[in-house]
Amino acid sequence: MAATPTPRLSELHAMRDQLQTRYAALKAAGLTLNMARGKPASDQLDLPAELMSLPGGADFTAKDGTDCRNYGGLQGLAEARQLFTGVLGVPADQIIIGDNSSLALMHDCVAFGLLKGTCDSQGPWVASQTTFLCPVPGYDRHFAICEEFGIKMINVPLKEDGPDMDVVEKLVASDPTIKGMWCVPKYSNPTGTVYSDQVIERLAAMKTAAPDFRLFWDNAYAVHHLDGKAAEIANIIERCAQHGHPNRAYVFSSTSKITLAGAGLAVFGSSPANVKWLLARMNQRTIGSDKINQLRHVRFLKDEAGLAALMDRHAAILKPKFDKVIEIFQRELGEWGIAHWTLPQGGYFISLDVPAGLAKRVVQLAKEAGIVLTPAGATFPYNKDPEDRNIRIAPSFPDLEEISQAAEGVALCVLLAAAESA
Amino acid sequence: MAATPTPRLSELHAMRDQLQTRYAALKAAGLTLNMARGKPASDQLDLPAELMSLPGGADFTAKDGTDCRNYGGLQGLAEARQLFTGVLGVPADQIIIGDNSSLALMHDCVAFGLLKGTCDSQGPWVASQTTFLCPVPGYDRHFAICEEFGIKMINVPLKEDGPDMDVVEKLVASDPTIKGMWCVPKYSNPTGTVYSDQVIERLAAMKTAAPDFRLFWDNAYAVHHLDGKAAEIANIIERCAQHGHPNRAYVFSSTSKITLAGAGLAVFGSSPANVKWLLARMNQRTIGSDKINQLRHVRFLKDEAGLAALMDRHAAILKPKFDKVIEIFQRELGEWGIAHWTLPQGGYFISLDVPAGLAKRVVQLAKEAGIVLTPAGATFPYNKDPEDRNIRIAPSFPDLEEISQAAEGVALCVLLAAAESA
Repeated sequence: MAATPTPRLSELHAMRDQLQTRYAALKAAGLTLNMARGKPASDQLDLPAELMSLPGGADFTAKDGTDCRNYGGLQGLAEARQLFTGVLGVPADQIIIGDNSSLALMHDCVAFGLLKGTCDSQGPWVASQTTFLCPVPGYDRHFAICEEFGIKMINVPLKEDGPDMDVVEKLVASDPTIKGMWCVPKYSNPTGTVYSDQVIERLAAMKTAAPDFRLFWDNAYAVHHLDGKAAEIANIIERCAQHGHPNRAYVFSSTSKITLAGAGLAVFGSSPANVKWLLARMNQRTIGSDKINQLRHVRFLKDEAGLAALMDRHAAILKPKFDKVIEIFQRELGEWGIAHWTLPQGGYFISLDVPAGLAKRVVQLAKEAGIVLTPAGATFPYNKDPEDRNIRIAPSFPDLEEISQAAEGVALCVLLAAAESA
Repeated sequence: MAATPTPRLSELHAMRDQLQTRYAALKAAGLTLNMARGKPASDQLDLPAELMSLPGGADFTAKDGTDCRNYGGLQGLAEARQLFTGVLGVPADQIIIGDNSSLALMHDCVAFGLLKGTCDSQGPWVASQTTFLCPVPGYDRHFAICEEFGIKMINVPLKEDGPDMDVVEKLVASDPTIKGMWCVPKYSNPTGTVYSDQVIERLAAMKTAAPDFRLFWDNAYAVHHLDGKAAEIANIIERCAQHGHPNRAYVFSSTSKITLAGAGLAVFGSSPANVKWLLARMNQRTIGSDKINQLRHVRFLKDEAGLAALMDRHAAILKPKFDKVIEIFQRELGEWGIAHWTLPQGGYFISLDVPAGLAKRVVQLAKEAGIVLTPAGATFPYNKDPEDRNIRIAPSFPDLEEISQAAEGVALCVLLAAAESA
């Protein structure tokens, strides 16, 4: 978070007419800008252009001799799994390659939990109430899975170093219906939070009333630094095992923001027992994921060094966009002391907190001026931000010029909303 | 079915020693042949070689301007959906493109039925007993989905023209727990059965005690003829609508046996209400399937004529293999009157019926001689063939020489098993 001076609300109120005039001019400019979703920009999608003509007509044989064009290979090619050992923090035999969506793997782990139970469950979760803990603000699509299946969600405050562990430990110790918790441990969506070693240690060690409690560890931004080198976080699977909870964490990631957002690889890593359990479930669902796409990725990325080099090129495109938003927020909002925003070192989002009760109004004002933001409330379960403060800013997709216009527009909307309410 | 003369069991019994000598020689030959699964052969997988380097680096834009490399497009590209209107028998706006596995779409429709109910359900199926009707012999992976989720399965005899409709009508009319029925309406797995117009009409018209009853219409072999032109079957979705049951049929297919078995496209077609329902479920699971693979398929197949031309090339490879098996069965088994086999006009299988109680023994004898067949019983729910008669023969993967050896070996195993038991 940027440091914030004392709010100067009465001064803002006095500027109300002036702000309204500026807002009228913004509307008149007829912008059509979108900072709603964390989509890679077109020049990022150009980076893996080679992928589009791989693997080539005669190249279809995996290292072990598998003809990748045919059926089979439920767990994924060994060489593709090897690529993700660093990202997931487990050896290749504890990795499963899915289709193109890690969200789908998370959804299926929830659905299989409900219908079958985990490998540590007495029976299907659906037989009784199921509850998930949700660090907030968080990722709307995680919450949507719970809402779809009637899973009760409990908000947990996300602090600078991760979820508020005092709250988490107390809840999981006493409530056996708490079967899961959503975590984005690195460059969290939308705050950019990196879980500290202490927080991860406590998540691994804590006593849970449910013997089949699972951390849904969505390491979506594992290698997605903006500057320099990606942050290092503790290995959740190793930590859980050390504390006698070997099956506690399901780890997810994907290449959606590494290679292609629509055509990448999703990956799952966990304990041997969880991998065996998920393969046994998947075995009813499919004969195997797309091995040609796995081979294509192996040929293109080659190894972890190749993956890291590609991520530097993404960072070079993304960093100026994040810098621009933050520069404009600081310039336009900094002196007023009414808004806070994060200074992420990676990931795809900036989290903007406006005065309580104004997030919806700001998003509405922006929308009327042609700037689409993620709906206010989306970063909370049931789309309900209890304080109506948080707005997710997604600077990745527009170009720098559009970013400038959008950030200036959003800043003006924040000032105007505050002036209106002062 | 081939016509069968009167069984000559006593003669066979007298030949027992001779058959055992021949079987010992077969074992000594040390074959390693596999006719267990319906996998395309390597030369079939060569047919779409062009696909392996498509769409190419600069070709990523769909007709409507979508950048296929990015997120989005839950329903699939319009031009990809257009390709399958003939296969599915619905307009493009009633089609959803999935990942590479139609089995996964079927699995998910069952799982969503259990957890959420259909668009005509009062609530989730999982709240009470769920039952599916299973025409037998049928596809083992259909039955495995039901077994996974504890769905009760009731066998229904498959006749020459489809399921025994007297049995089906009686069951669905009286039992409200019957929520689904598996159907492979064209070149059925394993019998090659093509459902008659009358059977399809009765399936569409029948009264069901469950208002949310669904036909799981797995048209896996829609265009997979062996000779000449694919059979035409009645349009199940139109028929159901005509009878006031617009949402009765979920239709599935894929290009697994058209382009690549591991890297094709799976498709779903149904009524507008069912499509809306499935998209609403999928929306929690994924941001969209792999649009680059959809574009790749559009570029390669081009249109329905392109698809049909490709299927003729598959038929040219497959037909001699089916002919060889049937020729050998006729030559080796025809005169003995103890076995029946189907004469499929399409699909991937020949269904072999041996004397009651001997299927397991035949499969075991074949295995000991190095010929792997689909396990006896696999074509029935719970892997239980009540008469232990049916064996699925999959002639697609081995080459012609291997097919000859395998078919001769299987025929010998049938004769020996019958001689042993006579």
